[in-house]
Amino acid sequence: MDEPLRVAANGLIDRRAFLRGGAAFAAALATYEASKPAAAEALTDDPWSKVPGKTVTAYGLPSRFEEKVGRTLSNPNGEPRTQHARTPHHLLNGTFTPNGVHFVISHMGNPDIDPARHRLVIHGLVKRPLVFTLDALARYPMVSRMTFLECGGNSAPLFASQPVQAGVQALHGLASCAEWTGVPLATLLEESGIDPRAKWLIAEGGDAPALSRSVPLKKGLDDAMIALYQNGERLMPGNGYPMRLLLPGWEGNMNVKYLRRIELVEEPAMSYYEARTYAPILPNGKAYRFFFLQQVKSFITHPSPGLALRGPGLYEVSGIAYSGNGRISRVMVSADGGATWAESALQEPVLSKAFTRFRIPWRWDGGPAVLQSRAWDEAGNVQPTRAQIVAERGESDKVLPATAFISQHYNGPTSWAIESNGEVKHVYA
Amino acid sequence: MDEPLRVAANGLIDRRAFLRGGAAFAAALATYEASKPAAAEALTDDPWSKVPGKTVTAYGLPSRFEEKVGRTLSNPNGEPRTQHARTPHHLLNGTFTPNGVHFVISHMGNPDIDPARHRLVIHGLVKRPLVFTLDALARYPMVSRMTFLECGGNSAPLFASQPVQAGVQALHGLASCAEWTGVPLATLLEESGIDPRAKWLIAEGGDAPALSRSVPLKKGLDDAMIALYQNGERLMPGNGYPMRLLLPGWEGNMNVKYLRRIELVEEPAMSYYEARTYAPILPNGKAYRFFFLQQVKSFITHPSPGLALRGPGLYEVSGIAYSGNGRISRVMVSADGGATWAESALQEPVLSKAFTRFRIPWRWDGGPAVLQSRAWDEAGNVQPTRAQIVAERGESDKVLPATAFISQHYNGPTSWAIESNGEVKHVYA
Repeated sequence: MDEPLRVAANGLIDRRAFLRGGAAFAAALATYEASKPAAAEALTDDPWSKVPGKTVTAYGLPSRFEEKVGRTLSNPNGEPRTQHARTPHHLLNGTFTPNGVHFVISHMGNPDIDPARHRLVIHGLVKRPLVFTLDALARYPMVSRMTFLECGGNSAPLFASQPVQAGVQALHGLASCAEWTGVPLATLLEESGIDPRAKWLIAEGGDAPALSRSVPLKKGLDDAMIALYQNGERLMPGNGYPMRLLLPGWEGNMNVKYLRRIELVEEPAMSYYEARTYAPILPNGKAYRFFFLQQVKSFITHPSPGLALRGPGLYEVSGIAYSGNGRISRVMVSADGGATWAESALQEPVLSKAFTRFRIPWRWDGGPAVLQSRAWDEAGNVQPTRAQIVAERGESDKVLPATAFISQHYNGPTSWAIESNGEVKHVYA
Repeated sequence: MDEPLRVAANGLIDRRAFLRGGAAFAAALATYEASKPAAAEALTDDPWSKVPGKTVTAYGLPSRFEEKVGRTLSNPNGEPRTQHARTPHHLLNGTFTPNGVHFVISHMGNPDIDPARHRLVIHGLVKRPLVFTLDALARYPMVSRMTFLECGGNSAPLFASQPVQAGVQALHGLASCAEWTGVPLATLLEESGIDPRAKWLIAEGGDAPALSRSVPLKKGLDDAMIALYQNGERLMPGNGYPMRLLLPGWEGNMNVKYLRRIELVEEPAMSYYEARTYAPILPNGKAYRFFFLQQVKSFITHPSPGLALRGPGLYEVSGIAYSGNGRISRVMVSADGGATWAESALQEPVLSKAFTRFRIPWRWDGGPAVLQSRAWDEAGNVQPTRAQIVAERGESDKVLPATAFISQHYNGPTSWAIESNGEVKHVYA
């Protein structure tokens, strides 16, 4: 009866099964254990139905039952080193990241910037150096766009020679997606007047580390933005308040937070952060430097470690795909470790350089299964295998400490093994 | 020089001016007073550049300088009556509303629901009554969609015979937009098996008022959703945690929060909330009942009262448009109180039944101006004038107290007069 719905081995079901209705639909639900017949006691009044609730506040926060939905912190006491705050992808759903749990990497904490005093200066190889207040920028034409941001070091544990036992938050939590609204950088650069000698711009942050990165001017005139709003409200303090450079699809740290200065120059600055921190040495001795693009990638968030299956039956497998090259065109899912594949459904609208949610129904028979996803983008790029990546860039625990920054730009697959008790484990497959 | 850019009287400029570059672009900027040449002191270090910042936390909150970005509360002490919390549209930008400031109307506060104990029951004219836990629903195929929600009483002050001196938050703050993720109601109804006699469903909330509304079954099988996530995270306590009925484009209170029960029936229930609260008496003596749709509407958020202009020059006029009938197709803007009109730019992607941000550049010459917007949707509907609306439904301060609930479903224009000092006032025009 349900034969037409199967599209790959080990229980993967046609992504359109739930759009069809009728017999095919009933077949898909045939072994569905999730719901159960309503018993007489189902409609008793719960305690919260009998008392007044809590007063509505000016700024709403999640329920106290959702306190677990937070970022994991690498440096919770703010010691004088980098702090990482990772997005809990397994506890979220949809296509982007709420501001409270957008990932943060901070080299010296979130500066307490007074927006009335903050300035943005554009200078260097321009005809007229300009200075902008927040009030001045508020008058310019703005644009909004959904864009993911991802640290170049996201997914670094996948460079380890053995699969690290961790979940999607620890492995991929340094990527998030938001709607950013602000002023196109091109508008401000045109107003300054660009000297024809200018080929790069140097963007500098106003926090204590004064992180600076060199950006090709071509990107600055393409889709770069001075972002002022994140998901409708002003940027979060960890994400660059009151303004940041947004370079859609490019390595996270280049999207300079707390932006205070853009200087147009002829050559890149070779700043500390681009000459050392974000420039790992490859096995062939060359530096992995000025690799801007976050390439096509995907991972399954549901199920994933920490979200155990509760017995055999139907489940939705879903996850996130994105590419710095543009739109996601296809995400294939396997339930047998890559032997057979089925095409997942992509949540519309599929937007360029934004998270795309993929979904596919799957009937788990209780036996061994390894879930994996593989994404393509509209430019024709596909995620490489892990073997291809480590052949080129090595494994992080097999190289000298001096090259320990090798763990950058992993965009291979992630595999989740389902154990017979429903637990989910990270494996290489 | 700038003649080709003017598209309507009193300074409205072609929405594509900033996409063109070159001479047209320079002309648009010619009287731009926003930025200024950078002086030598522009790059001095601010105090926050010299000290470590604050430690990153598990759940991020806005900067302390943004404390004004909150909802206004009609009942801040939670007295035993309805509480309204209004969205500060003038302090936001982009196309949707962050969860912290999504509007809330609560008849008895936010219930403190334990998601592990909450149940959803589907019963009545079904073949198999079913009960669902949160864990059960998590296994079903989900969908995500951006959708606005709007209280039927949003914009009620516009029914007053004289323009109420208030801003966009007070006038239109009972509308918000979010990405909602959950299970299509059709999936659950199909699983229950629908008795052919069923024509309506009654949705009931689990909070103390047990708000219930009757919904045509056809809508339940169309785009209705059991929403579990709001902008990526679990629903806010004020917005229905842990689950609500979502009826895209339909009157806010029908999107029943804290949903605990759906009963399929032959006739509507004529519940308290649909027979009395949301059923105002019209001048002709009939009840304005079962009017589900939130019709095409728009309002300008920037500038608006509280956001004074700082001298003549170029500004962006921007605002929000939406329609319960589908996509917005066009928003026209006037700077002379409706005498002449120019077409604004619509921020892509324009999504069905979601907020659409419109924008148009405007050069204010310092003289009298009245800004107004008017939206069309893809079904061909256009916002009526205020005169048309009050001719049919009356003015709220000219009717008997017994019919004071007349102030529902205003979707006419809103007009902002710019005074010579740059202050913005609400007027009728």
